[in-house]
Amino acid sequence: MDSRINEKCGIFGIYNNSESARITYLGLYSLQHRGQESCGIATSDGNRIYKSVGMGKVIDFFTEDKISKLIGNISIGHVRYSTTGESNPLNAQPLVANYNRGYIAVAHNGNITNAMKIRLELEKEGAIFQSTSDTEVIIHLIARSKKKNFNDALLESLALLEGAFCFVILRENSLIAVRDPWGFRPLSLGFKDNSYVIASETTAFDVIDADYVRDIEPGEVIVIENNRITSLFIPRNEKKSCCVFELIYFAKPSSIVFNHSVYSFREELGRQLAIEDDITPDIVIPVPDSGRMAALGYSSQKNVPLGEGLIRSHYIGRTFIEPSQGIRDFGVKIKFSPVKDLLKNKRIVVIDDSIVRGTTARKIIRMIKNVGAKEIHFRISSPPTISPCFFGIDFPTKEELLANKMSLPEIEKYLGVNSLKYISYDGMISCLKDKGFCTACFDGKYPVKVENFSKNIMTDR
Amino acid sequence: MDSRINEKCGIFGIYNNSESARITYLGLYSLQHRGQESCGIATSDGNRIYKSVGMGKVIDFFTEDKISKLIGNISIGHVRYSTTGESNPLNAQPLVANYNRGYIAVAHNGNITNAMKIRLELEKEGAIFQSTSDTEVIIHLIARSKKKNFNDALLESLALLEGAFCFVILRENSLIAVRDPWGFRPLSLGFKDNSYVIASETTAFDVIDADYVRDIEPGEVIVIENNRITSLFIPRNEKKSCCVFELIYFAKPSSIVFNHSVYSFREELGRQLAIEDDITPDIVIPVPDSGRMAALGYSSQKNVPLGEGLIRSHYIGRTFIEPSQGIRDFGVKIKFSPVKDLLKNKRIVVIDDSIVRGTTARKIIRMIKNVGAKEIHFRISSPPTISPCFFGIDFPTKEELLANKMSLPEIEKYLGVNSLKYISYDGMISCLKDKGFCTACFDGKYPVKVENFSKNIMTDR
Amino acid sequence: MDSRINEKCGIFGIYNNSESARITYLGLYSLQHRGQESCGIATSDGNRIYKSVGMGKVIDFFTEDKISKLIGNISIGHVRYSTTGESNPLNAQPLVANYNRGYIAVAHNGNITNAMKIRLELEKEGAIFQSTSDTEVIIHLIARSKKKNFNDALLESLALLEGAFCFVILRENSLIAVRDPWGFRPLSLGFKDNSYVIASETTAFDVIDADYVRDIEPGEVIVIENNRITSLFIPRNEKKSCCVFELIYFAKPSSIVFNHSVYSFREELGRQLAIEDDITPDIVIPVPDSGRMAALGYSSQKNVPLGEGLIRSHYIGRTFIEPSQGIRDFGVKIKFSPVKDLLKNKRIVVIDDSIVRGTTARKIIRMIKNVGAKEIHFRISSPPTISPCFFGIDFPTKEELLANKMSLPEIEKYLGVNSLKYISYDGMISCLKDKGFCTACFDGKYPVKVENFSKNIMTDR
Amino acid sequence: MDSRINEKCGIFGIYNNSESARITYLGLYSLQHRGQESCGIATSDGNRIYKSVGMGKVIDFFTEDKISKLIGNISIGHVRYSTTGESNPLNAQPLVANYNRGYIAVAHNGNITNAMKIRLELEKEGAIFQSTSDTEVIIHLIARSKKKNFNDALLESLALLEGAFCFVILRENSLIAVRDPWGFRPLSLGFKDNSYVIASETTAFDVIDADYVRDIEPGEVIVIENNRITSLFIPRNEKKSCCVFELIYFAKPSSIVFNHSVYSFREELGRQLAIEDDITPDIVIPVPDSGRMAALGYSSQKNVPLGEGLIRSHYIGRTFIEPSQGIRDFGVKIKFSPVKDLLKNKRIVVIDDSIVRGTTARKIIRMIKNVGAKEIHFRISSPPTISPCFFGIDFPTKEELLANKMSLPEIEKYLGVNSLKYISYDGMISCLKDKGFCTACFDGKYPVKVENFSKNIMTDR
Repeated sequence: MDSRINEKCGIFGIYNNSESARITYLGLYSLQHRGQESCGIATSDGNRIYKSVGMGKVIDFFTEDKISKLIGNISIGHVRYSTTGESNPLNAQPLVANYNRGYIAVAHNGNITNAMKIRLELEKEGAIFQSTSDTEVIIHLIARSKKKNFNDALLESLALLEGAFCFVILRENSLIAVRDPWGFRPLSLGFKDNSYVIASETTAFDVIDADYVRDIEPGEVIVIENNRITSLFIPRNEKKSCCVFELIYFAKPSSIVFNHSVYSFREELGRQLAIEDDITPDIVIPVPDSGRMAALGYSSQKNVPLGEGLIRSHYIGRTFIEPSQGIRDFGVKIKFSPVKDLLKNKRIVVIDDSIVRGTTARKIIRMIKNVGAKEIHFRISSPPTISPCFFGIDFPTKEELLANKMSLPEIEKYLGVNSLKYISYDGMISCLKDKGFCTACFDGKYPVKVENFSKNIMTDR
Repeated sequence: MDSRINEKCGIFGIYNNSESARITYLGLYSLQHRGQESCGIATSDGNRIYKSVGMGKVIDFFTEDKISKLIGNISIGHVRYSTTGESNPLNAQPLVANYNRGYIAVAHNGNITNAMKIRLELEKEGAIFQSTSDTEVIIHLIARSKKKNFNDALLESLALLEGAFCFVILRENSLIAVRDPWGFRPLSLGFKDNSYVIASETTAFDVIDADYVRDIEPGEVIVIENNRITSLFIPRNEKKSCCVFELIYFAKPSSIVFNHSVYSFREELGRQLAIEDDITPDIVIPVPDSGRMAALGYSSQKNVPLGEGLIRSHYIGRTFIEPSQGIRDFGVKIKFSPVKDLLKNKRIVVIDDSIVRGTTARKIIRMIKNVGAKEIHFRISSPPTISPCFFGIDFPTKEELLANKMSLPEIEKYLGVNSLKYISYDGMISCLKDKGFCTACFDGKYPVKVENFSKNIMTDR
Repeated sequence: MDSRINEKCGIFGIYNNSESARITYLGLYSLQHRGQESCGIATSDGNRIYKSVGMGKVIDFFTEDKISKLIGNISIGHVRYSTTGESNPLNAQPLVANYNRGYIAVAHNGNITNAMKIRLELEKEGAIFQSTSDTEVIIHLIARSKKKNFNDALLESLALLEGAFCFVILRENSLIAVRDPWGFRPLSLGFKDNSYVIASETTAFDVIDADYVRDIEPGEVIVIENNRITSLFIPRNEKKSCCVFELIYFAKPSSIVFNHSVYSFREELGRQLAIEDDITPDIVIPVPDSGRMAALGYSSQKNVPLGEGLIRSHYIGRTFIEPSQGIRDFGVKIKFSPVKDLLKNKRIVVIDDSIVRGTTARKIIRMIKNVGAKEIHFRISSPPTISPCFFGIDFPTKEELLANKMSLPEIEKYLGVNSLKYISYDGMISCLKDKGFCTACFDGKYPVKVENFSKNIMTDR
Repeated sequence: MDSRINEKCGIFGIYNNSESARITYLGLYSLQHRGQESCGIATSDGNRIYKSVGMGKVIDFFTEDKISKLIGNISIGHVRYSTTGESNPLNAQPLVANYNRGYIAVAHNGNITNAMKIRLELEKEGAIFQSTSDTEVIIHLIARSKKKNFNDALLESLALLEGAFCFVILRENSLIAVRDPWGFRPLSLGFKDNSYVIASETTAFDVIDADYVRDIEPGEVIVIENNRITSLFIPRNEKKSCCVFELIYFAKPSSIVFNHSVYSFREELGRQLAIEDDITPDIVIPVPDSGRMAALGYSSQKNVPLGEGLIRSHYIGRTFIEPSQGIRDFGVKIKFSPVKDLLKNKRIVVIDDSIVRGTTARKIIRMIKNVGAKEIHFRISSPPTISPCFFGIDFPTKEELLANKMSLPEIEKYLGVNSLKYISYDGMISCLKDKGFCTACFDGKYPVKVENFSKNIMTDR
C-alpha cells in the first residue's frame, strides 16, 4: 500500500445530535492541522447515508448549502493530508458503500500495512475497488464475512488488519469507533449534552463544548447504538506502540494525547535539550510555531531570553505567484519575516522540533544569517530521524532523510550553522510519563513487520 | 467624509522593474495585515495604465492570469480593510482616471478629514465622482489646477488637504510617493537592484529582497521619473504627529516604523508594564499574536515564566457555519484553543495590547476561567483608549469605547478578571525614543481640527 | 432498478489517437443533446486509467487543465441526463474500478432491466457498490467470472443482462463497444486517420472529421486491441427491437440512426400526417426545434406556407430568477418569443413531435392564442404515448401520460385547441424502411419482460 | 471615439414596480441577442442608487443574491457586446456617478460620434473620467450645465451630441428615456400593470407581460416622474435615419422595430431576392438562424422546397478546446452539423442575411460541398456591405469588408460557390414601408458627418 496514502488524517464522529453535520464541521475544523488537502462528512438519518466530500479546507469546502443537505443525527467526518502533488478526489473520505447489510461509511486515520496483500486476495475472489486507498479493504472484509451479526463480522475483519488504523464507522443507526491493537494513533471519546463524540484529538472537544471522557484503548471497538455504548475488543494481542511523533510534532499543543499534555511534553523536551547543551546564547529563537514550546522550555531552563525572531504570516495559501527573476529562498520568505534588530549581532540558539530533509531549515538559517546574526546554533527537540514511518506519518524515504545522508559536521556545514545538536534518544524517553511508544523513526524498530513495503505502491502494480 | 473609509490600508509601489506587478503582489502580500478586504494593482507600460482590483486577499484575488495582464515597469498596489459589513467594490483601489494630463492611478492610506468639504465645492463646479472614498478628491484637484507643470499642480492640490494621507501615484512614466505634513502614517523608500520601491512598512522590503533606504519625511513628495528621484515638499508647516498606535498594534513586529523597531517597542512596553505592576503571577500568557511581544517583555522583567496558553488557529476564515443550538463564546473558540493543563489552578497574568470594546477580551477571559484558572489579572500594554481616531485607525465611536463606558472596577467586573491594569500614559511615552507622536486616542488631543466629523458621512447626505 | 437512471445518455470512444481526450471532448459535445446533466471522460496511457467526471455540460465542465491531465491514446466518454432533480455526482460516468484484471472503465447508454436482481445476488456474496446506477453490475460480473480470458468473461457476463445497453469499455490497452442483443439504442463505428471511433450517433463523426463505417450490430461486441478490430457476439438470440423514439425525437436530425436519416424520417412523418389530415390552414408553425422537420414535410405535402411563429431563445440556462408577482406561462415565455403579426388572425396548424404530459404544449398554445390566432389545430407526428419506456427513454409513469388520462376531446379542451390529431400508428410504421423496431411506448408491447419494475427503485429498498 | 465601443447594446428601464430589478433581469434576458459580453442593472429606492454590473450573460452573471440587493421601484439595465477580445469591465454599464444633483445612472445604446471632441474639451476644464466609453460625456455635460432645472440641463446637453444614442437614465425618483434626433436605434415604450417600461425592442415586452404602447420618437425625451409621463424634445432638427441593418440582421424576428415586423421584412427580402433571381434549385437552405426568414420567403416565392440542411448546436460556448492536430473548419463544425442525405447531389441555394468578411461563409460552403452538394448558389438578402457603420453596428474597417476587396467573380471563387447574388439596393428599399432609413453601410451616405473617426480611438491617444 502506498505509504503516502492515509497519512496525517483526522477523524471525528458524533451520535445523537440534531445538528450532527454542523458539529462535525466544527470538530473537523479544529482537527484541520491533521490534514488540509481534502475533507468530508457523512451523516445518517436512520434510513440512508448522505455524503459530501471534496478537496480543500473545511471552511472553504463546506458551505451552508452543503451542510444543510447532510441530514441526520449521526455523523462522521475526515480531514486528510497528502504530500504528493497528485491529490486524488476519489480518495477523499468518508468512503460510502452499499452492500448486503445496507449502507456503510468509513473514515480512517492511519496506514494498514497489509492492505495490499488483503486487497490482492479479495480481487482474486472478484472484488472491485473504487479507490486506491487502503481504507476500502475493511468494507470488503465485512461484506464477505459469513458472520450473521455485524459486530462479529467487524471484529473478525479488524483482526485481519495490521498497522495503524483508527476508524469511525457510520451505519444507518450506529456510530462505531475503532483503534488498532497497537494504538499507534490517538482516538478519544467525549460527551456533549446527550451526544457521544469521537475525535482524533481532545482539542476538538473544546470547540464544541464537549467534555473529554477517556481515550479509546488500543484494540478497542466502541459501538454506539440505541443510545447505549458497548465496548468490544479486537481478538488480537499486540504490544502498545503509541506514536511518539504525534507528541513531538503532529498533534495540537492544546490536546491531551496518549495521556500526555502535548504542550507540556514539548516544553519538557526543550528543558531536557537545554540540560544536555553547554552553550550560552544571547537569545533563543523558535521556528514558529513548531519549535515554540521547546523554545519556551529551553529558554526557561537556561534562563536565557526568548525572542520571536521570525514572524509567521497568517495568509499562507496553496499557490504563490513568484517572479521569474527569482527571490532568494522564496518559500521561506513568504512564510516568515525576520525581526532584524532582534537577530543582528546576536549569538542565537534556533529551536525546531525535527529535521526531515533539511531544505526548509537551511533557508531559515540563511535568512537569519543574512540579517546579521553573529552565531547560529541549531537545536532539535527530537533525535535524528533515520527511518521512515509506515504507520501514518508522512516521512520521505530513508535515502532522503538528512540524518542518513550526512554526518553531523556535514549537516552543520550544509545548514550553515555554527553548531547543531539533537536531543538524545534517552533524553527524549525521559520526558515520557510511561512506556509503550513506537520510536521507529528514531531507532528503526518497527512494532509490526513490514515486508516489501516499497514495492507495494498501488499505482506501480 | 466617512471615518470608516480608507482606514487601515497598506500601499506599495515600484519603479523600473520588468516584473513590477509580480513584485507589487508580493509587497501587498507582506502588507496584508494592514487590510484584507480588498486589494488592487495598477501598472503602466509607458503609454497606458492597466488595473486589476477586487474583493478579498491578495493570494486569493490575484491569479497568474490577472497578474500577467498587468504589464509595464511601474506599478502601485493597495490593500484595504473596512470594518463595516457593507464593503463596496467601487471603493477598491488603486483608483484610475483619465483626464487632461492623461492617465493617473492613486492608492491611499489614511483619512483626509476635509475631503467632504472639498468634494462639495468640486461638485458645485460640475465634478462627478465614481467612488464614495475620500481619495478621489486629490485627482479632481489636480485635474482642475491651472498650473502647467504636473508637480506644481500636485503640490498645490496636496496643500489643500488635511488629515492623514500617504499616497502612491502612478502616471504613464512616473511613480510618486506622498506623506502628509503631519506624518501620521508610515511610508518608506527601498531599493532593489535598479528599482525604487515604496511601501507602508519596511517588512515589505524583506520579502522582495529590497534594501531599506529611508522613510519618506512628513510633507515630502518623492517623484521618480527618468530613473531619477526628486524630493519636493508640500508647502505647509505642521507639527509632526506620527500615530503611536501603529507601533502599539497595527504594524508588523518585523517592521521598522517611525525609526522604531515595532518588536522592541512592544517588548519595552511589556517591561514598563511589569515595572508598574506589583503582582507576582505563576505564569504570563499573551493573547496571541497581539500581546506576545509585550508578554515577552513582562515575563522577562518580572522573571516569571511565559506560557502559550492560547493556541491560535491558522485556518480562520471569513465565515463560519455555527450550530443553531449555540456554542458558548463561539467566535473566540474557533480562534483560540486553551491549553488546559497550563492554565489550570494558576495565578495568571494575561497580556494584550489594547482594549477597545472589550467584547472579545471578555470571552477570552471566560474561556481561560472555564478551564480552571485560579486568578486572572489582565494587563494592557497601552493606556485606556478614550477617543476615536479620525486619521485612519478603525476605532468605534467615543460612546462604544469601553474605557468611556465604565470605571476600572466596573470593567474588571465586566471582563470577569481579578484585576485589570493599563500601562500609564507616561510609561508608554518613556518607551518612545523621540517626540512627535499623535496620542489622541489616549488623550483626546487631535493635531488637526476635525469639525462636524460625524455629520460628514458620505452615505448620510 | 430506478427507471430514471441511465436514461438519455450518449457515449463515445476512440482508440489510437494521440489526442484522444480532446477528440472525445468534441465527440461528447456533439452528443450533448443526449444528456446535459453530467459528463465525463476516462483515458488510458497503457498502464493506468485517468478520469475526470462532473456535473454540467461538456464545454462548461471541461477546461484545458482538466483535458490535459487525461493522457493516453485510448479514451471513452459519457454524457448523461436525468429528469430527477436530485442529480447524483456519484453516478457520473465513466465508472472506473480496480479489480483482479487491472483497471476498467465503463460508460453506458440504456437501462438494464434486471440490474437490481443481479445486484442483490452479488451483494449476497459480499459485493460492495460505489454507485446506485445499474451500470456497475457489469463490472462485478466480469470480476467474478471464472473465465481466464477477459473476452470470455465479458461475453458470459453480458449474456446475463436484460434490457437496453450500449457500453464503451476501456481497459489499459483496449477499447470495447457493446450493443445489447435487442439493439434498443444506436451505436456506430467510425474511422479517422488511424483511429477507430465509437459513438452513439453518427453526427459525432462529422465534428471530428471521421468517416462513418457501420453500425455495431445488435448483440455485437467489438474489441479493438493491438490495432486490430475483432467482432464477437453475445451468446443470446433476441428479436431486433430498435427504439423508434430515437428517430422521432431523441437523436439529432443530422444523424443516421438504425439506417434511417433522422431528418428524412421526421419530414416523412410530417408528410404522412398531412395525408391523414383534411384541414387546410393558413399557415403551419413548428414548435422549435422538435417539430421543425415534421412541419417542413406537412407544409410541403399540403402546399401550405410554413412560418416560424415561435422564436426560440439561444440563452436558456438551468435557473431563472422569476418575479414573485408571477409572469403567465413563465417557463414557455423565456424559451419562446411569439411573432405576433405572423400568428394574428390566422388559422394555424401547430406541429410537434409528441405529447407526454402536455403541460408545456398547453402553455405554448395559450401563448399563440393570446397574440390573436383565429384557430389552432395541433398536430403530432407520433401516435399517442400510452406506455412508459423501461429501456432508456425518460417518460413519466403510465398515470402521468396525458393520453392515458383523458379522451381526445378532453385533451383538446385541456390544451385549448380547436382540434388535435396524432399520426396513425400504421402511418408511422409506413415511414420506416424496415422492421425490427420497439414501439412499446405506443402499443405497450415490450420486447423484454419487465417484472415488478416500479418496486425495484434503488433508493426505496 | 472608439468605434468598437457601445456597439450592439440593448437597454431596458422600468418605473414603479416593486420588483423592478427582477423585471429588468427578464427584459435584459430577452434583449440578450443585442449583447452577451457584459450586463448590468441599477435601481433606485428613492434615496440612493444600487448597481450590479459584470461580464457575461444575464442568466450567468445575475444570481438571486445579486438581484435581491438591487432594491427600489425604478430600474434600468444594459447588455453590451464588443467584438474586441479585450473586453473591459470598467465599461460595463449602467454607469453610476455622484455629482452636484445627487446620483445618476445611465445606460446607452449607440455611438456618439463627437464624444471624443467633447471629452477633450471637458478634460481641458478639469473633468476626470472613470471609463473609456463615450457614454460618460453626457453625465459631465449635465453636471456642468448652468441650468437650474435638471430637464433643461439634460436637453441642453443632449443637443450637443451627434450620432446614435438611446439612453435610459435613472435618477433617485425618475426614469428618463432618450432617442437621438436621427432615430438610428430603436426604443419603445410599454406598459405593465401600473408600470411604465422602456426597451430597445418590443420583444422584451412579451416576456414580462407588458403591452407595447408606442415608439420613442427621434429626438424625443420621455421623463417619467411622480407617476406621470412627460414628453420633451431635443432642440435640434435632423433627418430621420433609422438603421436598416436592425431590420436585416440585428433585431429579434419577434420584434416590431421602426414600425416594421422584423420577421415579415426579412421574409419579404427573401421573396424579392427570389424575384430578382432566375435560378431553379432543388432545395433552399438557410444559414440558421440568420438566413431563415429570407429562406422562407425565397422558397415560397419560387415554390422550391425548403430544407434545414444545417443543424445548429444549442450548446455553443465562448471557448472550445481544439485538438492541436486540427479539425478542418473547426469553428463552423462546432456550430453546425450538416444533414448529409439532404444536401448530397443537390443543386442548392444557400441563403444568409449578409456577408461581412466572408470567412465564416466560406467554411459553411466548404462543409456543404464536402458532404456532396452538386451545385451551391449563395444568395444574400441584403446588398453588398461596402462602408463601415459609425452608429453602433459592429462592422470591420472598409478594407476588411469582402465586397470592397474583390469583384463578384472573385468572391464567388473565394467562397467556392457556383454563383453568388445579392438583393439589389432598390429591391431592398422596396421592402420597406416608408422612408427615413440610414443605408450608409450599403451606399456610404452618412446622415452625420464623421470626421477623423479612425483617429479618435480612445486607447490610441
